[in-house]
Amino acid sequence: MSLHLVPDLRNPDVLNPDLHTPDLLNAGDAPPRIAAVGVADFADVPRTAGADVSTLDWRPPAGGDPDLAWKLAELTGHEAVEAANRTAVDRLLAVRPVWRDVRTARDVLPVLDDRTTGERVLLHAGPPVDWADMCGPMRAGVIGAALLEGWADTPEQAELLADTGALCFEPCHHHEAVGPMGGITSPSMPVLVVEDPATGRRAYANLNEGAGRCLRYGALGDDVMDRLRWMADVLAPALRAALAARPDGVDLRSVVAQALQMGDECHSRNTAASALLLRDIAAPLARVPHGPEVLEFLAENHYWFLNFSMAAAKLATSAAQGVAHSTLVTAFARNGVEVGIRVSGLGDAWFTAPAAEVRGLYFAGYGPEDANPDIGDSAITETNGLGGFALAAAPAITGFVGGTVQEALRTSRDMARITLARHEAYRLPALGGIGSPVGIDLRAVLDTGIEPVVTTGIAHREPGIGQIGAGLAHAPLECFRKALEAFAVPETVDAAGAPRT
Amino acid sequence: MSLHLVPDLRNPDVLNPDLHTPDLLNAGDAPPRIAAVGVADFADVPRTAGADVSTLDWRPPAGGDPDLAWKLAELTGHEAVEAANRTAVDRLLAVRPVWRDVRTARDVLPVLDDRTTGERVLLHAGPPVDWADMCGPMRAGVIGAALLEGWADTPEQAELLADTGALCFEPCHHHEAVGPMGGITSPSMPVLVVEDPATGRRAYANLNEGAGRCLRYGALGDDVMDRLRWMADVLAPALRAALAARPDGVDLRSVVAQALQMGDECHSRNTAASALLLRDIAAPLARVPHGPEVLEFLAENHYWFLNFSMAAAKLATSAAQGVAHSTLVTAFARNGVEVGIRVSGLGDAWFTAPAAEVRGLYFAGYGPEDANPDIGDSAITETNGLGGFALAAAPAITGFVGGTVQEALRTSRDMARITLARHEAYRLPALGGIGSPVGIDLRAVLDTGIEPVVTTGIAHREPGIGQIGAGLAHAPLECFRKALEAFAVPETVDAAGAPRT
Repeated sequence: MSLHLVPDLRNPDVLNPDLHTPDLLNAGDAPPRIAAVGVADFADVPRTAGADVSTLDWRPPAGGDPDLAWKLAELTGHEAVEAANRTAVDRLLAVRPVWRDVRTARDVLPVLDDRTTGERVLLHAGPPVDWADMCGPMRAGVIGAALLEGWADTPEQAELLADTGALCFEPCHHHEAVGPMGGITSPSMPVLVVEDPATGRRAYANLNEGAGRCLRYGALGDDVMDRLRWMADVLAPALRAALAARPDGVDLRSVVAQALQMGDECHSRNTAASALLLRDIAAPLARVPHGPEVLEFLAENHYWFLNFSMAAAKLATSAAQGVAHSTLVTAFARNGVEVGIRVSGLGDAWFTAPAAEVRGLYFAGYGPEDANPDIGDSAITETNGLGGFALAAAPAITGFVGGTVQEALRTSRDMARITLARHEAYRLPALGGIGSPVGIDLRAVLDTGIEPVVTTGIAHREPGIGQIGAGLAHAPLECFRKALEAFAVPETVDAAGAPRT
Repeated sequence: MSLHLVPDLRNPDVLNPDLHTPDLLNAGDAPPRIAAVGVADFADVPRTAGADVSTLDWRPPAGGDPDLAWKLAELTGHEAVEAANRTAVDRLLAVRPVWRDVRTARDVLPVLDDRTTGERVLLHAGPPVDWADMCGPMRAGVIGAALLEGWADTPEQAELLADTGALCFEPCHHHEAVGPMGGITSPSMPVLVVEDPATGRRAYANLNEGAGRCLRYGALGDDVMDRLRWMADVLAPALRAALAARPDGVDLRSVVAQALQMGDECHSRNTAASALLLRDIAAPLARVPHGPEVLEFLAENHYWFLNFSMAAAKLATSAAQGVAHSTLVTAFARNGVEVGIRVSGLGDAWFTAPAAEVRGLYFAGYGPEDANPDIGDSAITETNGLGGFALAAAPAITGFVGGTVQEALRTSRDMARITLARHEAYRLPALGGIGSPVGIDLRAVLDTGIEPVVTTGIAHREPGIGQIGAGLAHAPLECFRKALEAFAVPETVDAAGAPRT
């Protein structure tokens, strides 16, 4: 098949399947060579008649909505949008994330400073969600955090506090923060501080608890609470003291770039990046109180780098936020009930859809019926060209999330069809060192129908249990359709600023 | 081209190019479809005449020597050889290399115990070589070791000692030891001890100095000497003390298996394995004197694991040595002048050929005219299914040794044609997780004409300078031809032990 179909997006008739007849595609007396696009059933009739039918993986733009397809056509190649997207993606790529510090959340996130607000605020993953609507693992996170803060002595008391409105909830994303899975971040928890030296901008993430029973997955119990207390009392001060020996901080861009050469995609596989980060900080840690036990914890935690990857991604994508007319997606986050995206040119609005199912591999004894839908801020790594977008870098991950090496390569290739750029530092060795696709373009998602993919863990839907598997999920097309509906086609102006016809 | 040529190895006429005419390969009136095998020029005449000529990458068995080809044919499928090779490769694969200790060389290698021998012995890489014949970088290693041991106060005195026969030289391989590049190991140097718990067998390697100016590459100077003294006085005792907290040692098989999923081939790329080994030992090191400075050294040394990979490989391949009738290659080593191999069924003999040229990339200011030929014991990693044999695991290495990702994949596939097994623990993610090819079969090398490949550093040919590049080299076919000449075709016996006809 050397036939190429390039639909004219400015012509809504492209959406009319009646026009796609074999007669239009062939001429002369040669046996018909037929390309079927769109509805798969179209291929059956000619195929039954013995024709050679190639099925193209093509979906109508904008999910088949003619009005949105019109708007999409108007935005395609629009010079104001193209210019805005270049600005936005350049800003994203210019960020140099440096790990600067580990601080107590209330000291760096004013919303969590209960000393001044007088309120009991918790940050959570994804777009805004009320306590009444929260999924099981996020509710467990709230209960655990209330116990940790001493606001409640029992899980029942904690639930009563939430039920009676005594707790306030804010998305992490509203405060330049991110948290994996439930993402619950409370005032006394330590957070890592990532800074862009050129601008002084900062982003934050809580610290990774490791594998096994963790609050982020909704596990509850003395073991979970004890570890969280140890992280605040021992781990955070030791890291902070060790970082004092690194006055320039730790260059996270370099760690990610190296880790992509070492089998990580820096979302669901962080083995290499975690080992590299440990390597960089081992000697300074060996010189501070509790250094050896901190090194033991880090040596066991192969997910340690995830929260760094997320904070670095938040710092980069936030830099691209707020460029008028830009269709770049600057956030992609899930609260376990809804998935939401934010778009550079659309302000702070979230465009949401019901959270997607995660397809993957389950731990022994669990299955899809136990799974919570897709949850967590960690999809910010995909928004930054990592995770599912860099899947080609991590062939070994297929044993964890499912699929084959060839599918991993194809996933990175597919994601390049919905992104604006190739990352200049984050490269994919299995694809000959080409940059990872970065900068999700709202238009391209709707044009191709390709939903951004995310590699993710699977939490049990009931509170108190924890992780039960890992796999792949997608950002639903509906988020993007809603964002396009909200998007105003910019007026085309000439060099003098006058509208063009 | 679906045409397959399977030469009958029992027919020496297969070596007669006169028989390979297009007429033999085609029939009827269809346009001729020609397969050219052997001499590339054969393809020119029919190609000039407009024929469709496919050139097969085929070489006559045994390098075209009819007598050797006869012997090769007799050994092909020979049941005593097949059984011996199964035994040998099973022994190789059964070894579980565990890092047990760091000791002073004279305390664990009797040949270096100058307290009892009264002699000044140095170990060197590769097959036996006299001082008079040694290449530049190895001579520099001898000079540096003589200075380190206090046998000489100046390089001139050291050379005089060697010139007058006051120094003795032995291959590392003769003492269950291995050393990269020059491989010079002297009595006071620390060596790492790797043990197979099931048998108690041990193998040894000196410690890796890092990158830059190193004795193993033939660099000389105060910086080189100071580092070697620090390694003996500080590094080795700290590692030994830290290992005391690991009573079961460190499982090197597990480190290699993980590192292959992380872009290493554990010969010329050891970034991941070195980081994993640091991770495993960081907490114990943080608890012993000089732990922080040792961690600083390890964090900077991305080749640290190479010597562990080599000692583990030596332990595995030695287990396969001495199986009567086995054609398994158990050593492949270079002294910078000659390359030598040892074969399981051929005792302790070395079969040598002039050392090969290394083709690769040079540091700025250097070129092939500066390069020493292939040198070092590190090809023991290839003998163990790593290095060039596992090149598919290390796409990023192509930026260091040259070539493309596709060539790296093909190299691992080619090496599978000359090996007896797939490693059960060492797997290649980019090839869908198939085991790395392991167990070089003398017969297969001569049958296919495929020379074992090695990823390696390039040393300057003059003493005192050091590394100038990295690339790929091959074990010359001549080594294998000599080994085959020495190989006796075993008598075929029936179940009762009587010779078969």
